[in-house]
Amino acid sequence: MPSEAPPTIPPPALARPRRKVAEARKAKHGQAPGVAVYAGTPRAEGIQLTCLDYDAERVRELHHPSPDEIRRLVADPTVSWFDLSGIHDPALVQRVCEALEIHPLAMEDVLNPHTRPKIDDYGDHLLVVLKCATRNGQPGHFELEQVSLVLGPRWVASFQERPGDGWHRVRERVHQGRGRIRHQGPAYLLHALMDAVVDDYFDVLDSMEGEIESIEALAVDGAGVDVPRRAHAIRGRLYALRRLIWPVREGLAPLLRGESARIDKDVIPYYRDLADHLSQCLDLMDGSRDRLLALVELHLALASHGMNQVMKVLTVMTTIFMPLTFIAGVYGMNFEHMPELGWPWAYPAVLGLMLALAVGMAWWFQRKRWL
Amino acid sequence: MPSEAPPTIPPPALARPRRKVAEARKAKHGQAPGVAVYAGTPRAEGIQLTCLDYDAERVRELHHPSPDEIRRLVADPTVSWFDLSGIHDPALVQRVCEALEIHPLAMEDVLNPHTRPKIDDYGDHLLVVLKCATRNGQPGHFELEQVSLVLGPRWVASFQERPGDGWHRVRERVHQGRGRIRHQGPAYLLHALMDAVVDDYFDVLDSMEGEIESIEALAVDGAGVDVPRRAHAIRGRLYALRRLIWPVREGLAPLLRGESARIDKDVIPYYRDLADHLSQCLDLMDGSRDRLLALVELHLALASHGMNQVMKVLTVMTTIFMPLTFIAGVYGMNFEHMPELGWPWAYPAVLGLMLALAVGMAWWFQRKRWL
Amino acid sequence: MPSEAPPTIPPPALARPRRKVAEARKAKHGQAPGVAVYAGTPRAEGIQLTCLDYDAERVRELHHPSPDEIRRLVADPTVSWFDLSGIHDPALVQRVCEALEIHPLAMEDVLNPHTRPKIDDYGDHLLVVLKCATRNGQPGHFELEQVSLVLGPRWVASFQERPGDGWHRVRERVHQGRGRIRHQGPAYLLHALMDAVVDDYFDVLDSMEGEIESIEALAVDGAGVDVPRRAHAIRGRLYALRRLIWPVREGLAPLLRGESARIDKDVIPYYRDLADHLSQCLDLMDGSRDRLLALVELHLALASHGMNQVMKVLTVMTTIFMPLTFIAGVYGMNFEHMPELGWPWAYPAVLGLMLALAVGMAWWFQRKRWL
Amino acid sequence: MPSEAPPTIPPPALARPRRKVAEARKAKHGQAPGVAVYAGTPRAEGIQLTCLDYDAERVRELHHPSPDEIRRLVADPTVSWFDLSGIHDPALVQRVCEALEIHPLAMEDVLNPHTRPKIDDYGDHLLVVLKCATRNGQPGHFELEQVSLVLGPRWVASFQERPGDGWHRVRERVHQGRGRIRHQGPAYLLHALMDAVVDDYFDVLDSMEGEIESIEALAVDGAGVDVPRRAHAIRGRLYALRRLIWPVREGLAPLLRGESARIDKDVIPYYRDLADHLSQCLDLMDGSRDRLLALVELHLALASHGMNQVMKVLTVMTTIFMPLTFIAGVYGMNFEHMPELGWPWAYPAVLGLMLALAVGMAWWFQRKRWL
Amino acid sequence: MPSEAPPTIPPPALARPRRKVAEARKAKHGQAPGVAVYAGTPRAEGIQLTCLDYDAERVRELHHPSPDEIRRLVADPTVSWFDLSGIHDPALVQRVCEALEIHPLAMEDVLNPHTRPKIDDYGDHLLVVLKCATRNGQPGHFELEQVSLVLGPRWVASFQERPGDGWHRVRERVHQGRGRIRHQGPAYLLHALMDAVVDDYFDVLDSMEGEIESIEALAVDGAGVDVPRRAHAIRGRLYALRRLIWPVREGLAPLLRGESARIDKDVIPYYRDLADHLSQCLDLMDGSRDRLLALVELHLALASHGMNQVMKVLTVMTTIFMPLTFIAGVYGMNFEHMPELGWPWAYPAVLGLMLALAVGMAWWFQRKRWL
Repeated sequence: MPSEAPPTIPPPALARPRRKVAEARKAKHGQAPGVAVYAGTPRAEGIQLTCLDYDAERVRELHHPSPDEIRRLVADPTVSWFDLSGIHDPALVQRVCEALEIHPLAMEDVLNPHTRPKIDDYGDHLLVVLKCATRNGQPGHFELEQVSLVLGPRWVASFQERPGDGWHRVRERVHQGRGRIRHQGPAYLLHALMDAVVDDYFDVLDSMEGEIESIEALAVDGAGVDVPRRAHAIRGRLYALRRLIWPVREGLAPLLRGESARIDKDVIPYYRDLADHLSQCLDLMDGSRDRLLALVELHLALASHGMNQVMKVLTVMTTIFMPLTFIAGVYGMNFEHMPELGWPWAYPAVLGLMLALAVGMAWWFQRKRWL
Repeated sequence: MPSEAPPTIPPPALARPRRKVAEARKAKHGQAPGVAVYAGTPRAEGIQLTCLDYDAERVRELHHPSPDEIRRLVADPTVSWFDLSGIHDPALVQRVCEALEIHPLAMEDVLNPHTRPKIDDYGDHLLVVLKCATRNGQPGHFELEQVSLVLGPRWVASFQERPGDGWHRVRERVHQGRGRIRHQGPAYLLHALMDAVVDDYFDVLDSMEGEIESIEALAVDGAGVDVPRRAHAIRGRLYALRRLIWPVREGLAPLLRGESARIDKDVIPYYRDLADHLSQCLDLMDGSRDRLLALVELHLALASHGMNQVMKVLTVMTTIFMPLTFIAGVYGMNFEHMPELGWPWAYPAVLGLMLALAVGMAWWFQRKRWL
Repeated sequence: MPSEAPPTIPPPALARPRRKVAEARKAKHGQAPGVAVYAGTPRAEGIQLTCLDYDAERVRELHHPSPDEIRRLVADPTVSWFDLSGIHDPALVQRVCEALEIHPLAMEDVLNPHTRPKIDDYGDHLLVVLKCATRNGQPGHFELEQVSLVLGPRWVASFQERPGDGWHRVRERVHQGRGRIRHQGPAYLLHALMDAVVDDYFDVLDSMEGEIESIEALAVDGAGVDVPRRAHAIRGRLYALRRLIWPVREGLAPLLRGESARIDKDVIPYYRDLADHLSQCLDLMDGSRDRLLALVELHLALASHGMNQVMKVLTVMTTIFMPLTFIAGVYGMNFEHMPELGWPWAYPAVLGLMLALAVGMAWWFQRKRWL
Repeated sequence: MPSEAPPTIPPPALARPRRKVAEARKAKHGQAPGVAVYAGTPRAEGIQLTCLDYDAERVRELHHPSPDEIRRLVADPTVSWFDLSGIHDPALVQRVCEALEIHPLAMEDVLNPHTRPKIDDYGDHLLVVLKCATRNGQPGHFELEQVSLVLGPRWVASFQERPGDGWHRVRERVHQGRGRIRHQGPAYLLHALMDAVVDDYFDVLDSMEGEIESIEALAVDGAGVDVPRRAHAIRGRLYALRRLIWPVREGLAPLLRGESARIDKDVIPYYRDLADHLSQCLDLMDGSRDRLLALVELHLALASHGMNQVMKVLTVMTTIFMPLTFIAGVYGMNFEHMPELGWPWAYPAVLGLMLALAVGMAWWFQRKRWL
Repeated sequence: MPSEAPPTIPPPALARPRRKVAEARKAKHGQAPGVAVYAGTPRAEGIQLTCLDYDAERVRELHHPSPDEIRRLVADPTVSWFDLSGIHDPALVQRVCEALEIHPLAMEDVLNPHTRPKIDDYGDHLLVVLKCATRNGQPGHFELEQVSLVLGPRWVASFQERPGDGWHRVRERVHQGRGRIRHQGPAYLLHALMDAVVDDYFDVLDSMEGEIESIEALAVDGAGVDVPRRAHAIRGRLYALRRLIWPVREGLAPLLRGESARIDKDVIPYYRDLADHLSQCLDLMDGSRDRLLALVELHLALASHGMNQVMKVLTVMTTIFMPLTFIAGVYGMNFEHMPELGWPWAYPAVLGLMLALAVGMAWWFQRKRWL
C-alpha cells in the first residue's frame, strides 16, 4: 500500500495500538464467541469483493459474487481467490464466511482488527491472521493493517481492512500466467499472498534501520538529548513489530512438519522459504535491537565522558583562581599594621608568587592528564 | 465486579499479597492436607448458593439447594451450574464438595484464597483456580478475587470469595438462550466463565496502560521524581499480575492437546480461542514491561542530560567570573607602590581587559557547544 | 526447629556455605565413593534414633532399635519411620543404612551435610535430600539444616543433623490418628515430612519479605547508604535459598509422571500438591527478586534525583552571587581615576543594579524550573 | 582469501549489510519464487566454472564444461566437484543448476548474496549456504562473502561470489591424494569445504580478540573516550558474525542425527567434528561478548571513580579557600569603626587564624580519606 | 598437581587462552582431519607411558610397553590403564592410539591441547576430553591442563600434557585394593579418574570464592578503584572456567540415559553422582557470578553515595560563604557616599547579619538532611 493513501480513508495509526486492543476486547465483554460483530472503529467507505477464478488454462474475474455464486465457484475444480476489502460490513463478511463454511470463531477473528497474528488449523480450512506493515512518510514509522487469509480445499479467501494493497503483483502473476502460480493449487496462492506481506516487512525494517543509523551518527557525535528520545521512540515501534511477526513464524512450524491437511507435501519447500524470510526478518530485528541498546549505552558513555570533561574544567579553574583571589583578598585588608604594604617590591613579588602558583597548579593538572 | 462494591464487604487489597500467602501457609503449618479449613481472613456477610439448571429447552434457577437436591441435579442429564459466593463458610463448601464428590485436595484449594492459579485434572473432574482482577478507582490499580471452577461430567461448580461478579452477562445468555450456550455441555459453560474472567484482565491492562502513558508523558517532559516512583509502583503490580496469568496459560496446554476426558474435541477450538486471549494478555504485558523499562531508561538519560546542562551553566559562570573577580581583587590590594593605580587610563583599560576576557571565554564555550 | 536452639548445639550458620561445600569436597578428595565418612564439622552431642511403627489400628514407638530389630520392623507389613537425629556418628548411620539395605552412594549423600538437594531413584528405594530452612532471630536471616529422607517399600528413614525439628506435628498426627496418615502407606508419610519442610520455607520467605518491605520503605524515603547494603545482603540470601529449592521442584517431575515404583498412583495428587507449594515458593522468590531489583533501581533513581537537586542549588547560588561579588570587587579597586566613586547616587545605583541582576537570574531559573 | 584482493573486484564490505538485505528483498518484491535473478549488486568481472572429477585412482580438471558434459560427469561413478566463482551471471548459474537438477528455490538462494546461512534438505540434494569471513587489514574488521554448497548423489557444487578462495588447500589435497579425501564420497568433500570456511572464522575471531585486548589495555588504564567507541564498533561486528554462524550450527543437528539421505553413517563423525568446531567458535564469541561487556562496565566504573576524584579535589579546594577569602573580605570592609584594624597584632593574628582553619580543614578531609 | 611444578616444565598459563585456540586452529588450516600433528606449543621434556594392569586378585605396573605389548594387554580379561604424560610426541601418541584402535578424529582431539571439553561416543570406545584446573599460588588464579580419557572394552587410556597429576590417590586405591575399584570394570576406573579432576574444580572454586570474599570486604568498605579492577579479573576467569565445565555436564546426559554401550547399567549411579558434583560446581559458579554482579552493583551504589556526600559538602560550603563574601565585598567598595560606613554600630550589625545568614542556611540544610 503506498504511503499516499486516499484521503477519504484515514490510515490506522500505530499510536496506542495496545490500548485499542484492550478497548476492542472490552466492547465484546461477556458476549458469546462466534457472533458477527465488527470490533474495530466503524468506517463508511466502499467495500469491495472480487473473485479471481483460475486454472492452468484460463482466468476469470468476478465482482461482488452472490453467496450462491460463491458456493458454485468453490465447488468447481478451479482455484478461487475471494478478496474482500473493508471488513467493517459484518453482514457481508458473515454471508461470505457462511457460503465458504468458515468456522464461527475464525469469522470472529477476521472481523476483529486487533486479533493476534496466528495460524489456526480448523481441519478443513486454515486461518492465517497477519499484520501488514507499510512504510509511512516519516523515517522509521509504519502503518499496520490486518489481513486475514483462509485456505479451503479449492479456494483462498482474503480479508483486508481497506482497499489498496501490496498484492497487485500477485494479481498480475495470476492474470499473465507468469511463474508457477497458475499450475499450482490454492496452497501455493496462499504462500504467494503471505510472501508479499512479508516482503513489506523488509521495507519497513529498512526504513527503521535508516532511522537507527541516523541516531547512531548523532550518538557517535556525542550530541544531545535527541538520542535517547529518538531511540526510545524507534525501540517501542521495533518491539511492537517484533511481537506481531514472531507468532507467524511460530505458527508456521506445524505446517512445515506437514501436520496440516491443506498444505501438500510438494508446496512445503515454499513455506519453508517463507519461514526463512520470517526468520531473517526476526534476525534483522534482533540486530537492530542490539544496535539500539549498544547505541544508547554508547550515548551514555559519551555523555558521561563529556560531563567528566566539564567537571575537570570547572575544577581546574576553581583550583587555580581560588588561592589567587584569596591572596589578593589578604592584601586588600585594611589593617593599619601590615608592614608588607609599604615595601616597594612587595607588589611585584606578590604578582610573581601568584604567577608561580598558577603555573605550578597547571603543571600538576597537566601531570594528572586533566588538561 | 464493579469498582463500587457494596460497602459492607471490604475489597481484598493487593497490598502485600505475598506476605498473606506466606501467613496463610503458616496457619496451615503441619496440618493434614484435604481438611476443610478456610485459610483466608474470616468475614461475616451473606453467603449465596445458586444453581442454574438448563438444557436446550428450559432453564431453572434454584436457591440454596440441599445436598440431596444437588445430587439429584447432578444425576439428571441437564447442565447444572452451582455458583457459591462467599467461601468463608467451610461447612457449606464441604457439604457442596461432598455432594459433588470433589477430591479433598481440590476442596482445600477452593477454600484457600491464596491458591496459585492452576488447572488440575482429577480424572473425573477438573479444577480451575483463577484470580479475577477488577479495576479499581485509582488509575493502574486493581483488586483481586479468587474464583475456583470445577468441571464435572454434567455440571460446573464455581466458588467466589464475594457476591457480585462479572458473570451476569453469562447468566443472561443462559436465561435468554442467546448464542450456542444452551445447546452445549458444561465444558462450554466453563469456557464462557473463564472467558469472562479473562475479559476483565484486558480491562485492567487498559487501565495500567493508561497509567504508563501518563508516566511516559511525564518522562518525555524530563520531569521530576515522580517518574521512578510511579514506574516502580506500576511495575510491581504488573509483575504480580503476570505471575497470576501465565500459570493459567500453561495449564491450558494439556487441555488443548485433548488430554482431559472432560473437554470434548468439538469444544477445544473455544479453549484455543481462550488460550489466544491469554497469550494476547501476556503479550500486552510484555509490551507494557518493555515500555516501562524503556521509559525508566529514557527518564534516566534525560535526567542525566539535565544534570549535564546544570553542570555546564555552573562551569561557564564560574570560569568567566573567577578570573574577573581575581583581577578586581588584585587592584583592590592596598600596596603603597602600585604605579598602575595612579595612571588616568588604567581603570577603563582594566574594564576593557575584563570585557575582552569574558567575551573570549564565551566564544570558547560557544565553540565547545556548551552554550 | 525453634530459633532458640539448645545452646550446646551451635546452629550451622549460612555464612559462607559455599566455601564449606568446597572444603567438604576437598576433604574427600580422591577417595573411593560410598565410604562411610562424615563430611561435616564433627560434633559431640547426643544422637537419637527413634522408630515409629504404625498401621491403621496401632502405633508403637521404639528407641534405639538394634540392626536386627530394624530388619524385623522392615519385614512386617506396618509402616515404619526411622528417625535419626545427628548424622555425625558415621558408624551408627552405616549400621542403619546397611540394615535398611540403602545404596552406598545414598549413604554417602546422607553423611555429607553439603549434598546438593535432590531426589534420586535407586529402584527399590528413593533418596530425597532437602535443606530445612528455619527462621532466625534477625529479620531476613535463616539457618539451614540438611535432612535426608529415604523411602523404602514399607518404611521411611529420615536423617537430620541435629535433634529438634519441625516434624512434631507429623508425629502428633501419627499418634492421634488424625487425617489420612494412619490409613496410607510410607509414600504418604514421606509427603507429610517433605510438606512440613516446605511449610518452613514459607515462614522464612515471610521473614525475608518483611525485611524487603522495610528496605523498600527506606528507599521510597530516598534515604541513605543502608538501602544498597541491606539489599545486597538479603539478595545474597535469597539467591542462595532459591538454589536450594529449585532442584527439589525439578526432582519431583519424574515422580509426578509416575516413573517411580515407590510412589503409588493414588498418592501422586499429594505430590502434585507439594510441587504446587514449591512452585508457589519459587514464584514468591521471583517476586521478591523482582522487587529487590526494582527497589535498588528506585533507590538509584531517587539518589540521582537528589544529586540533581543538590547540583541545582549549588549552581543557582554560584550563578547569582558570582556576578554580584564581581561588581562589588570592581568598585573595591583602588584606582585614583574612578569618577563613579565620587557621584552621590552611585552607591544606591550599584545596589539597585545588583538587586536587578539577582532578581533577573532568579526569574530565569524559575523559568527553567530549577527553583 | 588474501586481504590484497585484485583491485578490479571491489570486496563486499560489511558496512550496512542489514540495509542491503532489506534492499535486495525489496528488489524481488512480489516476484514469483524460483526465478533466476541475481539479487546482488551487478559486477562485470570474470566468471570461472571448474570441475574437479576424481576417484581413488585419478583426478581430472575441466574448465567451463557444457551442460551436457556436466550431466555426463554427474552420471559416472566418480566424485565431481563443480566450482563456480562469480554468481552474477544468472544465466550460467541457471544452466549449471538445471544440468544438476537443483530445486528452483535452492537456485534462488544461491543467486541471492544475502541469503540467511542455512542447511536445507531437498531430499535428493542438500543445500548449504555459508558466509565466508576473511580478515581485513584493519584489526577486528572482516569481509564477508557468501558461498553456497550443494551436495548431490555423486557430486558437490560450490558457488562463490568472487574468484580467489580459501579452498586451495582442499584442491591440493585432492590433487596430491593426501589424507582420506580421494577414498571417500562427496559428503566427505562437502565436509572438507565447510571445514575450510569454519577455519577462517577462527582467524577472524583471533583478530577480533586482539582488538578487544587492546581496548582492554586502554580500559584498565582508565583512559578516554575511545574505549566505548571502539567497544561499540567491535561489538556490532561480533554480534553480526554470531548471527551468521549459529544458524549453521543449528542446521547441522538433523545431519548429525542421520536424518539426511545424502550423509552416510560413516561420515557423520566428521560432521560432528565440524559441529564441535562451530560450537567452539560460538563459545569463543560468547567469551568475547562477556569480555566486552565486562570491559565497558570496568571502563564506566573507572571513569566514575576518576570523576569522584575530580569532585573531591574541587570540594577540598573550595572548602578550604572560601572561608579564608571571606575572612579577608571582612577585614577589607571600609567601616570607620572597626577597632580591630588598629590593633598592632591583629594582622598576624588573622593570618594565624587562617592557617589554623586551613590546617583543620585539611585534617578533616584527611580523616574522611578525601586526600 | 602441586603449584610448585618442576621448573623445567613451564605451566600453561590461562593468559589469553582464547587467542591460543584460534592460533592452534590456524596452524591446522585446511589440513585433512585425523592426521597426527601436535597442535600445541612444542616442548622437549620427558614423556612417560605407564600401564597399570589389574583385576580383583593382582596388579601389575609396566613402563613404556611396546605396541605389541599394548595389544596383548588389551586382549587379556584384566583391566588395563594406559597413562601417557606429555602429548607433544605425536609419533608415540599415534603408536598408542593405533595399538588401541582409537578413531583418527579422537586421536586428533587428544593431540590438540585446545580441544573443547566433550564426551564423544565412537561406538566401541568413548572419548572424554576434560580440562584439569589446578590452583595457582595467587588467590583466584588457576592453571589449566587438558586430559583426554578413552574408554575401551577392557581398558582406559589417559593422555596428559605434563607428568605430575591429581591421580596419585586413584593409583594408590588400585595398588592397595581399597574400595570397589579392583572389583569393577574400566567404566568404574574412568569414573574415578573423572571424579578426581572434578574434585580439583572445587579446590579452584574455593580459591576464587576466597578472592571474591576479599573483594566483597573491600566493596562493603566503600573503598577504591581496586574493586572493579579485581572483580573484572576474577569474573573473566570464572566465566572461562564455566565454559570449560558445562560441556562435560551436558555430555554426561546421554551416558546417564544408558545410551553408551561402554557404560554398564550398574555403574550408572556412579556417573549420576559425578553429574551431581558437576551440577554442584556449576551451581557454585552461578552463585559466585551472582555475588560478583551484586558486589559490583553495591560498589557503584556506595561510590555514588560517596559522591553525593562530597557534592553536598561542596554545596553547603559554597551556599553559606558566597553571600557572606558578597556582603563583605559590598562594604569594601570605595564609594564616597556610603552613609553606613560612618555609623558606629554598622560593623557589629553587619557581622550579626552575616552570622544570622550562616545560621539560617545551616538550619535549612539541616532540615533538608544535607548535614
